[in-house]
Amino acid sequence: MKPVRVGICGLGTVGGGTFNVLTRNADDIARRAGRPIVIEQVAFRSFNPECDITGIKTTSDVFELATNPDIDVLVELIGGYDVARELVLTAIENGKHVVTANKALIAVHGNEIFKAAHEKGVIVAFEAAVAGGIPVIKSLREGLGANRIEWVAGIINGTGNYILTHMREEGRAFEDVLAEAQALGYAEADPTFDVEGIDAAHKLTILASIAYGVPLQFDKAYTEGISRITAEDVEQADNLGYIIKHLGISKRTEAGLELRVHPTLIPKERLLASVYGVKNAIAIMGDAVGPTLYYGAGAGAEPTASAVVADLLDVARDITTDHHYRVPYLAFSGIGEQESDLPIMPMEDIVSAYYLRLLAVDRPGVLARVATILSEQGISIEALIQKEAKEGELVPIILLTHCTREKQMNEAMRLIESLADIAGPVTRIRVESLDEQE
Amino acid sequence: MKPVRVGICGLGTVGGGTFNVLTRNADDIARRAGRPIVIEQVAFRSFNPECDITGIKTTSDVFELATNPDIDVLVELIGGYDVARELVLTAIENGKHVVTANKALIAVHGNEIFKAAHEKGVIVAFEAAVAGGIPVIKSLREGLGANRIEWVAGIINGTGNYILTHMREEGRAFEDVLAEAQALGYAEADPTFDVEGIDAAHKLTILASIAYGVPLQFDKAYTEGISRITAEDVEQADNLGYIIKHLGISKRTEAGLELRVHPTLIPKERLLASVYGVKNAIAIMGDAVGPTLYYGAGAGAEPTASAVVADLLDVARDITTDHHYRVPYLAFSGIGEQESDLPIMPMEDIVSAYYLRLLAVDRPGVLARVATILSEQGISIEALIQKEAKEGELVPIILLTHCTREKQMNEAMRLIESLADIAGPVTRIRVESLDEQE
Repeated sequence: MKPVRVGICGLGTVGGGTFNVLTRNADDIARRAGRPIVIEQVAFRSFNPECDITGIKTTSDVFELATNPDIDVLVELIGGYDVARELVLTAIENGKHVVTANKALIAVHGNEIFKAAHEKGVIVAFEAAVAGGIPVIKSLREGLGANRIEWVAGIINGTGNYILTHMREEGRAFEDVLAEAQALGYAEADPTFDVEGIDAAHKLTILASIAYGVPLQFDKAYTEGISRITAEDVEQADNLGYIIKHLGISKRTEAGLELRVHPTLIPKERLLASVYGVKNAIAIMGDAVGPTLYYGAGAGAEPTASAVVADLLDVARDITTDHHYRVPYLAFSGIGEQESDLPIMPMEDIVSAYYLRLLAVDRPGVLARVATILSEQGISIEALIQKEAKEGELVPIILLTHCTREKQMNEAMRLIESLADIAGPVTRIRVESLDEQE
Repeated sequence: MKPVRVGICGLGTVGGGTFNVLTRNADDIARRAGRPIVIEQVAFRSFNPECDITGIKTTSDVFELATNPDIDVLVELIGGYDVARELVLTAIENGKHVVTANKALIAVHGNEIFKAAHEKGVIVAFEAAVAGGIPVIKSLREGLGANRIEWVAGIINGTGNYILTHMREEGRAFEDVLAEAQALGYAEADPTFDVEGIDAAHKLTILASIAYGVPLQFDKAYTEGISRITAEDVEQADNLGYIIKHLGISKRTEAGLELRVHPTLIPKERLLASVYGVKNAIAIMGDAVGPTLYYGAGAGAEPTASAVVADLLDVARDITTDHHYRVPYLAFSGIGEQESDLPIMPMEDIVSAYYLRLLAVDRPGVLARVATILSEQGISIEALIQKEAKEGELVPIILLTHCTREKQMNEAMRLIESLADIAGPVTRIRVESLDEQE
C-alpha cells in the first residue's frame, strides 16, 4: 500500500514526541492505518536530542514542507498565531492535509482555516488541541454523534489544576504554589495564558463548536482566572462539601449557549473533583447517553503526540474518501449555511449558584443588611457561615446562594460592597452541580 | 444525498431506544453523517409502546430484514447467540453492513463473523457491545491508535457495581442487595451472567482483542464472580484503604496476555474507586498517552442507543470507502495472517498482590505457622490485621501480600487451609494498583 508521507513542522516537546511515537510504533501504526505512515521531512530551528533523525530530510524553513510535493500531510507543531496560520493556509493551498496541536490557532483562526480546507477538500485534524492525549474531540464529534449535547464541562488546563490541587492539599497560597510550578517547569515564566484561563478558553471554544455546531467564537468566551483564589476560599469550600476547580463550561439553554471559564465550586463526590495535578478531564452530557467523562494527560510530549498520531491515522484512512463523507471539522456538515445560529450568551444572562465571601465589620445588623440586599435581588441563601469575631478584626462571612441570574448577582455585589460595614471587594465564585451520576 | 437505510431487529429496551434516538435527533444526525439515516423496516415480536412506528414497515420475521434489498444496514438488537449469529451471517451474506450491541455474540462468534464480513467487504460495528454509551471501542481502536496498549481495566458490569456500591455504603450482605437489585429491575431473575462475571468477560474479551490485536478468545478468560464477597471483606478492605470493585483486567506481559474478571481491591483514591451504582468506567494505559479513563452509563435504552447510532454514523460515512481503509474490526488490519500471536496466559501464571481473610482458632502460634507457609512460597506480607478474639470464637486474620505469582498463592492457600488451626476456606481477593495518576 502507498504510504502516507508526513512533514513535521517543529521538533520541540510535542514535535519530538510525535517523531518518536511515529518511529517507535511504526509497525503497529501501519497495521492500524492499513498503510505505513512515514516521516518524509522535518523542519526545526533547534535540534531535539531526544530524536534520532538519521536518514530523515530536514530543513529550518517550515514553509518548505508546505510546498514539498512529496508530503501528503503537514503536521503543524510550531505553536503561536501568525506564522502558524500562514503555514497552515499555505499547506492547504498546496492541497495538503493538516494535523495541528495548536488550540490558539484553531480557536482564533479556525473558521478561516476550515473554509479554506473545505474549498480544497482537505482534512484539518486537531485532536491534540484539546486536552492533550484524551481522545475527547473524537468522542464528542463521533462517539456521541447520536446526541443532542446539553453541556460540556472540563478541567482543560493542567497548570491551573496543579496549582489548585496543591493549594488544597497543602493549604498554601496561590503565589507560593505558582512559584513552585514555575520552578518545576509545570508553569511558564509568564503564566498568564494558563492561570488567567485564556488557554482553557481556547479549548472550550473548540469543544463548544463541536458540541453544538456553532462557528468558533473565542472573542465571546468569558474568561476569569484563578489568581484571586485564596487558601481561605479553598478551605471554606471544603467545609461546605465542595472543591474549587478551574473549569471551562459550555451549556445549551433556551436563550443560547453559555461559554465561560472560571474557578468553580463543585461537589466533592464528582469525578471531576478527584482529578488531581496536571491531569485533565472533560464531562459531557448528551440527551441520549446521559453524563460521560474522559480523563487523562492534558499535555506533555508523548500524550500530545498520541493525539497527533491518532489524527494521522484518521488522515491515512480517509485520504481516499470523498471529502463530503469525512467527519466535518466542527462535527456538522455544510460549512456556513448549515451551522447553528445559537448565540453565545452575554455573561450577565447566565444562571448559576454562587459562593460569596465578605469581610464585615463586627457590628450588629450587618448580616441583616446583606440578606436584605440579596432578597431584594431575588437571590435566596442556601448556606451561611459567619466565623467568630476576634477582637478588632474583620469577620469573614461565607454565603452559598441558590441559582440566580448573574445580572442580579452583579447588582447585589455592587450594593453589598457599598455598605459601610463591608470591607473591600466581595469574593464571588460560581457553584455548579454538573451531576455526572444522573 | 442518498440516505442510508436501516433495518432494526428487535424493539425491546435497546431497539426501542435506538428507534427513538434515530427519530428524535434525525436532523442533527443527518448533518453529522452527511446524509439522512432512515429507518426502512423494523422487526419485532412484541410491540414497544414507547415507539411511534406510524408509517414504518414492520415484520415479525427478523430474517426478512437480512434479505430485504432496500436495507443497507441491519441493526441486530435481539440478543442471544444462535439466532443472532444466523441473522448476522445472513445479513452479511446479503452484502449488508451490520451494527450490533450483542457482546455475547461478538465475544463467542466474532472471529467467524468478522471473517465472513471481511470476505464480503462489509462493516460490522459493535460499540454498544462494551460499556453501553461510553465510546470506549472508538477511543481504544482509533483515539489511542498511536499507542502500544499496556493494560485495560474496567468496571464493565453495572449490576455488579450496583451491588458492591450498596454493600459498601450500607454495610449490607451480598444476597440482601442482590434481592433489592432484582426488585428494582437492575438485576435479572437469574443473575448468574452479571454477578458471576460472564457478561464482564464477554466485554473484556472484546476490549483485549482491540487493545492487542489478538483473536477473540472468550474461552480463555478467567472468570470469578462477586457472590462470595462478604460485608466483612468490604469493611476490612476499607480499613486498609481499598475499595472492592468487580473488574475486568487485561495486561500485556512478557509471557503473554492476562485476561481475567474477578473482585479486586483497588486504592480508594483511584477514579475507578469512585464509580458508583450502575455506572461503568474503563481505564486504559498506553505507552505514549499514559493512563486514560472513560466513564458513563454502561446500559439502559438510550445510552446503549447512543452507541448503536454512533456506529450507524460511522457506517453512513464509510459506506462508500474502500473496505481496506475502514477501521479494522479488531483494530489491526489483515484478518488472520497479521494478528498478534500473543498467548492468553493461564491464570496460575499471573502476578498479583492479594488480600487474604482467614478464620483461625485462637491458639498461640497460628500466625507464625501462616507466616511460615507464605514465606516458604516466597510471598511477603505487606499488612496484617488480627482482630481481638472473643471467648470461644474464631479470630479473623486479614493479610495483604506483596506481588506474587498466582501459582505460589494457590499452593500457600492449600497449605494454610490444611492447618488444623484454620477453619474453613481462605478468602482470597486480588489487589491491583492500576495507577491512573502516573
